[in-house]
Amino acid sequence: MLTLSVKEDRIARAANPTTASGVAKHAASRARARDLGIPLPGTPGPLNAITDVAGVEVGHATLIEGDGRLIVGKGPVRTGVTAILPRGKESQDPVFAGCAVLNGNGEMTGTAWIEESGFLSGPIMITNTHSVGVVRDAVVAWLALRNPRLTWALPVVAETFDGILNDINGFHVKKEHAFAALDNACSGPVAEGNAGGGTAMICHEFKGGIGTSSRVLGPSQGGHTVGVLCQCNHGRRRDLTIAGVAVGSEIRELMPCYDGDSPPEREWLRDMLPRCGEAAKSETPAGRGSIIVVVATDAPLLPHQLKRLARRTALGLALVGGRGHNDSGDLMIAFSVANPGAADPARKARLTMLSNESIDALFVATIEATEEAIVNAMLAAETMTGADRVCVHALPHHRLVEILKRYNRL
Amino acid sequence: MLTLSVKEDRIARAANPTTASGVAKHAASRARARDLGIPLPGTPGPLNAITDVAGVEVGHATLIEGDGRLIVGKGPVRTGVTAILPRGKESQDPVFAGCAVLNGNGEMTGTAWIEESGFLSGPIMITNTHSVGVVRDAVVAWLALRNPRLTWALPVVAETFDGILNDINGFHVKKEHAFAALDNACSGPVAEGNAGGGTAMICHEFKGGIGTSSRVLGPSQGGHTVGVLCQCNHGRRRDLTIAGVAVGSEIRELMPCYDGDSPPEREWLRDMLPRCGEAAKSETPAGRGSIIVVVATDAPLLPHQLKRLARRTALGLALVGGRGHNDSGDLMIAFSVANPGAADPARKARLTMLSNESIDALFVATIEATEEAIVNAMLAAETMTGADRVCVHALPHHRLVEILKRYNRL
Amino acid sequence: MLTLSVKEDRIARAANPTTASGVAKHAASRARARDLGIPLPGTPGPLNAITDVAGVEVGHATLIEGDGRLIVGKGPVRTGVTAILPRGKESQDPVFAGCAVLNGNGEMTGTAWIEESGFLSGPIMITNTHSVGVVRDAVVAWLALRNPRLTWALPVVAETFDGILNDINGFHVKKEHAFAALDNACSGPVAEGNAGGGTAMICHEFKGGIGTSSRVLGPSQGGHTVGVLCQCNHGRRRDLTIAGVAVGSEIRELMPCYDGDSPPEREWLRDMLPRCGEAAKSETPAGRGSIIVVVATDAPLLPHQLKRLARRTALGLALVGGRGHNDSGDLMIAFSVANPGAADPARKARLTMLSNESIDALFVATIEATEEAIVNAMLAAETMTGADRVCVHALPHHRLVEILKRYNRL
Amino acid sequence: MLTLSVKEDRIARAANPTTASGVAKHAASRARARDLGIPLPGTPGPLNAITDVAGVEVGHATLIEGDGRLIVGKGPVRTGVTAILPRGKESQDPVFAGCAVLNGNGEMTGTAWIEESGFLSGPIMITNTHSVGVVRDAVVAWLALRNPRLTWALPVVAETFDGILNDINGFHVKKEHAFAALDNACSGPVAEGNAGGGTAMICHEFKGGIGTSSRVLGPSQGGHTVGVLCQCNHGRRRDLTIAGVAVGSEIRELMPCYDGDSPPEREWLRDMLPRCGEAAKSETPAGRGSIIVVVATDAPLLPHQLKRLARRTALGLALVGGRGHNDSGDLMIAFSVANPGAADPARKARLTMLSNESIDALFVATIEATEEAIVNAMLAAETMTGADRVCVHALPHHRLVEILKRYNRL
Repeated sequence: MLTLSVKEDRIARAANPTTASGVAKHAASRARARDLGIPLPGTPGPLNAITDVAGVEVGHATLIEGDGRLIVGKGPVRTGVTAILPRGKESQDPVFAGCAVLNGNGEMTGTAWIEESGFLSGPIMITNTHSVGVVRDAVVAWLALRNPRLTWALPVVAETFDGILNDINGFHVKKEHAFAALDNACSGPVAEGNAGGGTAMICHEFKGGIGTSSRVLGPSQGGHTVGVLCQCNHGRRRDLTIAGVAVGSEIRELMPCYDGDSPPEREWLRDMLPRCGEAAKSETPAGRGSIIVVVATDAPLLPHQLKRLARRTALGLALVGGRGHNDSGDLMIAFSVANPGAADPARKARLTMLSNESIDALFVATIEATEEAIVNAMLAAETMTGADRVCVHALPHHRLVEILKRYNRL
Repeated sequence: MLTLSVKEDRIARAANPTTASGVAKHAASRARARDLGIPLPGTPGPLNAITDVAGVEVGHATLIEGDGRLIVGKGPVRTGVTAILPRGKESQDPVFAGCAVLNGNGEMTGTAWIEESGFLSGPIMITNTHSVGVVRDAVVAWLALRNPRLTWALPVVAETFDGILNDINGFHVKKEHAFAALDNACSGPVAEGNAGGGTAMICHEFKGGIGTSSRVLGPSQGGHTVGVLCQCNHGRRRDLTIAGVAVGSEIRELMPCYDGDSPPEREWLRDMLPRCGEAAKSETPAGRGSIIVVVATDAPLLPHQLKRLARRTALGLALVGGRGHNDSGDLMIAFSVANPGAADPARKARLTMLSNESIDALFVATIEATEEAIVNAMLAAETMTGADRVCVHALPHHRLVEILKRYNRL
Repeated sequence: MLTLSVKEDRIARAANPTTASGVAKHAASRARARDLGIPLPGTPGPLNAITDVAGVEVGHATLIEGDGRLIVGKGPVRTGVTAILPRGKESQDPVFAGCAVLNGNGEMTGTAWIEESGFLSGPIMITNTHSVGVVRDAVVAWLALRNPRLTWALPVVAETFDGILNDINGFHVKKEHAFAALDNACSGPVAEGNAGGGTAMICHEFKGGIGTSSRVLGPSQGGHTVGVLCQCNHGRRRDLTIAGVAVGSEIRELMPCYDGDSPPEREWLRDMLPRCGEAAKSETPAGRGSIIVVVATDAPLLPHQLKRLARRTALGLALVGGRGHNDSGDLMIAFSVANPGAADPARKARLTMLSNESIDALFVATIEATEEAIVNAMLAAETMTGADRVCVHALPHHRLVEILKRYNRL
Repeated sequence: MLTLSVKEDRIARAANPTTASGVAKHAASRARARDLGIPLPGTPGPLNAITDVAGVEVGHATLIEGDGRLIVGKGPVRTGVTAILPRGKESQDPVFAGCAVLNGNGEMTGTAWIEESGFLSGPIMITNTHSVGVVRDAVVAWLALRNPRLTWALPVVAETFDGILNDINGFHVKKEHAFAALDNACSGPVAEGNAGGGTAMICHEFKGGIGTSSRVLGPSQGGHTVGVLCQCNHGRRRDLTIAGVAVGSEIRELMPCYDGDSPPEREWLRDMLPRCGEAAKSETPAGRGSIIVVVATDAPLLPHQLKRLARRTALGLALVGGRGHNDSGDLMIAFSVANPGAADPARKARLTMLSNESIDALFVATIEATEEAIVNAMLAAETMTGADRVCVHALPHHRLVEILKRYNRL
């Protein structure tokens, strides 16, 4: 069973990647896309992360406990929560926001009010599919603790499915994990890969998870920053494309598999996952997940313009091989930290709006940062063995480099 | 056949209601809702018209020619064009705008770009269903004449169907009629009833057409003005409700009919319209039309807030008996004349935004003005006999007054 | 503190209205709209309830405990959960569904997948704003218990705010209450008023709650049934309209008030609620709530046609005085129990579709049933005193009857 | 000036590609993507065209006349009309359809009714931005000629802007050109490149136009066919990507230019186009256009499923370098020729629906066919000199082949 001390330790490590040895080692051992020299367009910010947008804070709570056979309610546990706070923990000032959907097989609560009001109040949370509820109500409680005058809240919580590696029906995410993700949120580098809500994610049938990237526009384009954070759980191997090269069709082995004598008892997995070391069927249930994309910018965009940004993320997704499958919940949200105070109920707000004629550079930045964030998620994620000894492999960096070289891209 | 001089005369009269004897007489002879004392809520502006919103100009071109049997291409002609110019003819400054649909059996061109950009450039035109195209291209030509630097335009043209009274497949609306509606647009009182695009409209199986109304909010509510203009061609008799009284179920006679020895040859009318003086079937094809609603305001609303206003018009429609029938194209557009210069491509715009918390009074004003504009359209419209001697009766004012008295509403 | 035995008792009583004495008495003592002779159009089904649609089951869990001063976490508790199961508890067969929004200040989870797939799987739950999460995850657990092969679920949970009468930030709704609402769901009469999710609702500043109504179309219109269930928490007093009569402007007393020596400590209530017996300010925070509308039909409608039905409920809402206020979460969902087996993943489904040309009668039925369901909610609800001794009065039946008579409607 | 005989000749040639020498030669001289061996995924149908979907007919009317300096109303004329008839000219049976928008800077009329009803009645027309109206009304007239019982129509007409090469404000497209495109529509091969509405289009700053492709699914995937036809007028050179290779960044010369001594007088072109032979600025106004995508399938999809297909085309667009720029009208429509008779107003329709679980192969087919249709449009288009001697170069096939070889893709 999980013990609180263990959990807190893991939470602390995931939420403080620069100081906790585990994640720090992780970060050191896994190069990001640009470290490998992958030719991706555009100019990232200093952190190449969503936190390059001033004020944005990110926190993770990561739950990893137990091994072996899945016993619902016992584990193994491989899950977590990620919190993105547009103006940081200390602010109660809403941001303009807009949403988009590529394929709606997923949940993002709170979007009806964003669509109606143009504002996002509070954090964006990402967790597993069956923990959206506990995290949602926890956000209400967390907000009420910090603001005794709060009457109501409609929190934004999104999800992707981790029920292959995780005991998802054990409901291991608790209110305190949501609190931990929120409380530990900070600016600075963002832990990628097997962290927070991304802990047990699978992307293009390699290990997936959290990825992030950013773009800084040149002065002639307004100098604005766009940051993207994805929770990547989508895609079939055969569609994986990096820097225009069909990497997925070159690495057909290392498919999700079970590591042991007997396949998972879960019926929908049993006949479809190979034993590790044996040849996979061309497609596994692991190719059926979702992606959540969060876009932040400091460009002064209105809600309808932010919807445009959110919609553009699908183009970045396409470049890496996303196809918006029927099983995929491809849900996007974009917000702008510009125009502080715009939501003040008491007055007419004075706003600044970027002209539509100046928005193309932000579209391109969003597409590029989405593409790179997905690649970063896959490069950061490490091989994980979870429930029923199902094993999902990390994308091997050396293989990627070798393939890109073969296609004259490195 | 139509002769240009006749047409121009009619256009002039309709477009200049205060000076042309025909329309002036019309206006004098037909009381508006408040003239009759109908208890409608709220405080209208000085004109009780969309032109109470500063800068808004309205022009009509009205085509009435010929009588008797319908000969496609010959007539009888009962149609027209109405132009609404948000900032008047002389301005090329776009306005923020938003659209809504209750039932989409209709056309409003140009809405994809409004939805995307948040801006409406140029006029809003309303005409008959089969003349949307000619009016649309005419707007391009009209804009290009006034602005030689214009490269492209995506005009907004909406329609309702006048093919019961009018030779709609004769395509009698020409480019010059669209030009006339635009050129004659002005501030001041707006001709209602059988005018412009509303010429041959049918509303709740009485004669319909153009109607307008406005509301002025008190200082504590911001002092803003909301104006509504409708082209009313919708509704079944039995659903007509005025000031909460089921007027339509009290006046079951005076249904659309044919005035003569033989029914219309048009198959879809032949068996469904009674001979004038004979009892109608409970429902006629005349109960199947549409409504276009245009909302103007000087409140500083952003595009997503204007969509909210546009959506509220359906509630006003419901109060008069609109049900959003399958045959109805219930299309709405709302714009704000605030924030001039917001569309300047060269710069970041400085904007003012009304807070969402202050928007309820505008919602109510929109609902109320829509309700009253529909009633005004019916009260202003005069009995018309058109193609195949089909006759559509005006709502008899004295009957309405008598019924409202019976229900203690007057 | 709540004790489980008390809760279970209350749950049982609310969920089994025909056998439990408390609710049965309640039902007996409060006449419905047609019992009072209110002239509402159309022909209801035998139960005049959503359960007239074959297969639909409804269950409530009602939590009422404690009195006096609000202590967050202690109470008083006035809340609950309502479950609507389209094909009943025993079916796992999804239904075609579609959603709509009038004003999006609210939550309905699970809608992205309905919009994308056209299907609703599982129940529709309605609870208070801050308990959406716990109910959502509880539905996952409840479904997993009944179907061990379930891999994932995206439950539909909607809400309205009961934080005036209820200790909403005490989070008193638990998983077992959601289970109780689901387990006790049944066909037959539906408890209205202060029941389930509707327990502490306020409607037009009278006591609100759950209401339901149905319409049965004549054989010439296809003979289909439409049922509506609303959780009514919306509207200002001044806008309340019943059978076309402005009832709300005739009963300006009996406004929400606090019953005692000192006003609520809650800042947003303190200065805005009068002491009981004293004159109210013209508007109270109690006029700012939401409405959830659920439409069921046995007509064979496709998903895009069900969206049309859902959208029509706003017209019924308007007839009773709903204005889609900024503070209101007016969220609608419609489903059809026709076409069983349509969601079978293994095959091409054979479907039946009602023609669009036959849909008008269903639109009208939806509008009428929505109007009547809201009136029924208000007529069934009983005066309630809750947190901080805030008191919300029931709409007095005799006053309503008297006013309708004065306007010649009875 | 245009003479009718000349126009008719051109129309005939473009509309009958297999018999007219001009277009046949054209077809013979320009290889398609697969002729060049470009590695594109999937299995096309026999024609690799939208006409692989049984019943679909395509017709073009192409207008090319005059040379030299632009004189508005005189020419040079480089424009046309393309007609797509889902069930061919002889059928009046509507098809299920759904629409999507990536960036809405464009026009597609008739979509409100498709969204509402689920049906597309009549053809899909594509022309230039300023001729949408004339083509729209022409469709009404054409339908009325063929069906005397037609009461109304809401035609679907989309556009992209050809005002760089064409005298767009001369309004050279007439009713008879729309008729010609419709009358000449046929099954069989589809003329690509400079044909019909695509005549003067510019794509990634090379010559663009009409392109088409198809996919046939294997028996295990249902054996269905998906066809795509695009009118390609979008994209910047630098973003052009073919088979994953950044071709556009390798061919930075051959940019749109003016061929002569003096630049175009049109202000928005004058300073931005280089003289032919001189170096271009990095970006030209020619990189700011739009794309219309039409998807046809014989898979039995419902309207909401067809919207999903339409939305997927944006992913195919992204793969070739589309970025959904602010100036782009990226409008999509998908229809299914399955379920004939579904729109019969008189009865409940019996339908077949493909399960959502089987739809992924159609998504992938749509993405692939969109990608290939765009490449085919560019490969088929020939260098064109138009208004003001502006010259837009064809993508040089040999350069493309050479670059793909360099990146080990050929």
